[in-house]
Amino acid sequence: MSLLDLLFGRPLASSEERAEKVGVAAGIPIFGLDALGSVAYGPEAALTVLIPLGLGGVRDIIPISGAIILLLALVYFSYLQTIAAYPRGGGSYIVTSQNLGTFPGLLAGTALLLDYVLVVAVGIAAGVGALVSAVPQLHSHTLGLCLVILVFISLINLRGIRSTGAAFMFPTYLFVLCVLSVLALGISRALAAGGHPVAAISLPKPNIGHQAAGAWLLLRSFASGCTAMTGVEAVSDGVAAFCEPRVRLARRTLSTIIFLLMLLLAGIAYLCRVYQIGATPPGGPGYQSVLSQLIAAVAGRSWFYFVAMTSILAVLVLQANTAFADFPRVCRAVAQNGFLPYSFASRGRRLVYSQGIYVLTFIAGSLLVVFRGVTDRLIPLFAVGAFLAFTFSQAGMVGHWRRTRDKRARDKMIISGVGATATGITVLLVMTSKFVEGAWITLVAIPAILLVMYAVRGHYDRAGRELASSSPLSTHDLCPPIVVVPIDSWSKIAQKALRFALTLSSDILVLQIRASEQPDDLEKQWPTLVEEPTRQAGLSVPKLIALESPYRFVVAPIVEYIVRLEREHPDRQVAVVIPQLVEKHWYEYFLHTQRSELLAALLLLKADQQITIVNVPWHLHA
Amino acid sequence: MSLLDLLFGRPLASSEERAEKVGVAAGIPIFGLDALGSVAYGPEAALTVLIPLGLGGVRDIIPISGAIILLLALVYFSYLQTIAAYPRGGGSYIVTSQNLGTFPGLLAGTALLLDYVLVVAVGIAAGVGALVSAVPQLHSHTLGLCLVILVFISLINLRGIRSTGAAFMFPTYLFVLCVLSVLALGISRALAAGGHPVAAISLPKPNIGHQAAGAWLLLRSFASGCTAMTGVEAVSDGVAAFCEPRVRLARRTLSTIIFLLMLLLAGIAYLCRVYQIGATPPGGPGYQSVLSQLIAAVAGRSWFYFVAMTSILAVLVLQANTAFADFPRVCRAVAQNGFLPYSFASRGRRLVYSQGIYVLTFIAGSLLVVFRGVTDRLIPLFAVGAFLAFTFSQAGMVGHWRRTRDKRARDKMIISGVGATATGITVLLVMTSKFVEGAWITLVAIPAILLVMYAVRGHYDRAGRELASSSPLSTHDLCPPIVVVPIDSWSKIAQKALRFALTLSSDILVLQIRASEQPDDLEKQWPTLVEEPTRQAGLSVPKLIALESPYRFVVAPIVEYIVRLEREHPDRQVAVVIPQLVEKHWYEYFLHTQRSELLAALLLLKADQQITIVNVPWHLHA
Repeated sequence: MSLLDLLFGRPLASSEERAEKVGVAAGIPIFGLDALGSVAYGPEAALTVLIPLGLGGVRDIIPISGAIILLLALVYFSYLQTIAAYPRGGGSYIVTSQNLGTFPGLLAGTALLLDYVLVVAVGIAAGVGALVSAVPQLHSHTLGLCLVILVFISLINLRGIRSTGAAFMFPTYLFVLCVLSVLALGISRALAAGGHPVAAISLPKPNIGHQAAGAWLLLRSFASGCTAMTGVEAVSDGVAAFCEPRVRLARRTLSTIIFLLMLLLAGIAYLCRVYQIGATPPGGPGYQSVLSQLIAAVAGRSWFYFVAMTSILAVLVLQANTAFADFPRVCRAVAQNGFLPYSFASRGRRLVYSQGIYVLTFIAGSLLVVFRGVTDRLIPLFAVGAFLAFTFSQAGMVGHWRRTRDKRARDKMIISGVGATATGITVLLVMTSKFVEGAWITLVAIPAILLVMYAVRGHYDRAGRELASSSPLSTHDLCPPIVVVPIDSWSKIAQKALRFALTLSSDILVLQIRASEQPDDLEKQWPTLVEEPTRQAGLSVPKLIALESPYRFVVAPIVEYIVRLEREHPDRQVAVVIPQLVEKHWYEYFLHTQRSELLAALLLLKADQQITIVNVPWHLHA
Repeated sequence: MSLLDLLFGRPLASSEERAEKVGVAAGIPIFGLDALGSVAYGPEAALTVLIPLGLGGVRDIIPISGAIILLLALVYFSYLQTIAAYPRGGGSYIVTSQNLGTFPGLLAGTALLLDYVLVVAVGIAAGVGALVSAVPQLHSHTLGLCLVILVFISLINLRGIRSTGAAFMFPTYLFVLCVLSVLALGISRALAAGGHPVAAISLPKPNIGHQAAGAWLLLRSFASGCTAMTGVEAVSDGVAAFCEPRVRLARRTLSTIIFLLMLLLAGIAYLCRVYQIGATPPGGPGYQSVLSQLIAAVAGRSWFYFVAMTSILAVLVLQANTAFADFPRVCRAVAQNGFLPYSFASRGRRLVYSQGIYVLTFIAGSLLVVFRGVTDRLIPLFAVGAFLAFTFSQAGMVGHWRRTRDKRARDKMIISGVGATATGITVLLVMTSKFVEGAWITLVAIPAILLVMYAVRGHYDRAGRELASSSPLSTHDLCPPIVVVPIDSWSKIAQKALRFALTLSSDILVLQIRASEQPDDLEKQWPTLVEEPTRQAGLSVPKLIALESPYRFVVAPIVEYIVRLEREHPDRQVAVVIPQLVEKHWYEYFLHTQRSELLAALLLLKADQQITIVNVPWHLHA
């Protein structure tokens, strides 16, 4: 157990839960990494769409970022309300299913689960991709690096939520500090230069635009830029993980995250505009990310540039952690309603929902392996998932406020409604503009996952109906079972099984397989070995039945005999007493035939309700 | 089952054994392929050692082959006696252990097993190697081809011995026919040309010798050429597989094989001499095998050449089959004495010792994979194994004749003794001349295998002593067990388990895990659900015990409780009645916690002799 303890920490008792709660400082890295990390690709994605406009496009980033910040504000107010209304955790799944019904709830939950799986795969792959483009020697290790990071994050999460916060605090705050410093320095220089600062280093010049800014292009740019907003729902899902007063702390955490996110988005947009920084065509020669250009323009390629770039890489990779914090919670909520296996709802040794972590690691790992660590094409999918979840969640809140008698319910309903409408329109925008690039996959994946969820629930419902009972124990017709004891030969273990059988019932049949037609030694000695002693003790006499087996099968004839016995006595239980040798060491397993295990397994498979299997173990001490 | 039947044939009853016996015509391919196939590399191996002698070496092949044929004759007479003396199969293992004792017997058996494993790996690799050097396009598929052939031979053997004979008859006889035709044609041409025939095609000329023929070189050449004799023991091992009169048929089969082998060896030696065919350096440029040169010299590169070469390839590959016919028999004999797991001694559905076939396939496959299908370096090892087995077997026969009162026992003893001495000297020769090239591995492998065999036997002896009993059943102190029923909640399956428990004993403890400190519903309802009905029926009342589990573990506290119970009542059996849900479909397995299986497994591991495990299954019909 010590290896387990080293990897995962000692087991935590349920009563230690309080100690595992987080405050604002730890909450920001745990629940905010995904959102904050988004600034590394949101503005870039918007600018990439604007490349055909040339310098004009760089000018348009200001209104587009403005629109994104506005949308973010709407969503922010909406989620602020959600946190207050759902102090035990109001994720999209819970809010939607409680207010709009099961099906929309599952749809929201599925969208979110999909989003999280993709965040993990895409986040890690993007971070490693940036790393290997900086250090080309690592290129052949792309997949290995991705998987090592995945396993690392997964282990950290299995240790529990507090360890997670501690581990990720440093890179998160380093990242925020670096980008804020760049923004402060850049803005002060720009203001000093009257809005026309000179870059510290020469930058790739945006081409001359060959296209006029059409509304559709601007809308597409906006839709792409919205990836900057993914991850803002995480706090509302995890309210329960905060210390008391948890609503206050959760709201403060969300406010800080959103405030920082807005600040970063606005600052980046402004500096891109004044330094005339546009996106370079991704994958093309001379590609350089927008943030890299921006930091270089403000600070030059100094040591600071490398520290800042390193922190960006770290945050890109570690934002997978937000998904790890939230995916298991969503699975648990869905499992509690019976739409996923119950094991998702039970907490492991460190008070985390281990099963969800395993599944997330496995699926994300599979995606990384299948795409060999290059997952660019999956990026549009996760925006669809995230915005679908936003929309459902806020639509659910509209339903929630409608039913409450709060005096400000009307205002709150309007806030949620506006948020829902805005994110809903964004989903449609992203779906249409990215449909061919991969968003269509969500139209396949989401219904498939929903089908599985309904099948799971159906199974639980049927099993529950079959097993449910509230009636008192029936003592009617209690009757000792017919006991069947299959034995090989006369040995201490056979005697032990037979002795146990004698305590169970007075109907005892001993089965023995014989290969030839002649009666063997056991049959000849049966009267002496068994019949006489039992008769003398006044017990009923066990009957020896020799089964012939022309095909040298040992187990099959016994199973057939027992199944026949069960049919012939439909009113009796049949207890099969199987003598079983238990070896001391695993390698001794191969030295003894595993007939007892095989027999038990076949009986469970072939027989019906009347059969009971009794294992009489003999522990080899030799 | 129909797929199994298609692959392996329908199951055979023990009584069908007669029909699975073979005669001479089928016996030759089954037991003779290994020996006959050896002519494809025996003479070549001898000539390769003679390369430094140039043309003089080619002259020396005549006395060397003569010596090999003489040794073969000695071994032949010796084995002819063995067949008569051991009509139920007299392999090296049986003969040696019966006459010289257990340890020499196991040594012989181990040597033979090693030989067989290597024959399979080396034979297949050599055949495929020759094939890919003829068709270089196949080169990248070497390993794949080896494994496909291995699996094919293994499947054929699992179908049973008769199918094997039928499948291999054609290539064996084609090979014999081709080589005999070449010899007949070549010898008649040579005689017509007064001993100086002209080759049909120009051949690589042996270099001018740069070394005189020393005794050591000739001995080494002889030792290498002896690989031509491997496989001649197979008939004596498999006497039991022949129809009646089996001794006669087995002797006739052995005679035919040895006669053909001698004829081929003598003919090849003569033709090499008169056509001046020497070995070419193996692995070097322009390498051509001796048989290829010989056939081309006599018949030209006509269609006949290609048919003959194909049959040689087939025989090289298929000689692995002799090992497949004999390896499982040796394993069985060793297992019957308890030095290998008993499962090697039980026959499968087609009356073959399936376990031995699996193991041989697995080990040979592993060797092929590890050496990636190129196993030249293993060749010296298998000669060591084979000649060790010959030596022990004949030495054993010396012991056998010494003890019999046969009037010709003295003559027979001399024959066996001369054979043993000759092969014993050959072992020493091969060991010393090939020690560095790989023969040393046998000095590591054989003791290692022997150690394992003695460990297995030791385990069986200890287990046997522990379990053995010839005393009649003791009825002393029979007392119903304490019954423990762990349940989750009140359901039909819990009720079924409890009803069964009530038929077993009047001491019933129901265990339930609760996560919190408050009593739960079941505890509150226990009097109504269980206590009242049992009391009214006049039964003893089951007691509910709630176990608290602060770490949310469910299984561990139950196991601990039961182990404690066992210790507190050293005089009682404890029967743990585990309600178990049985799913209808395998995928439903994931929907229910596997706690019952885990509990049963842990109880077997942690508890001692007093615990009995009772599975009360509930078959979900939903």
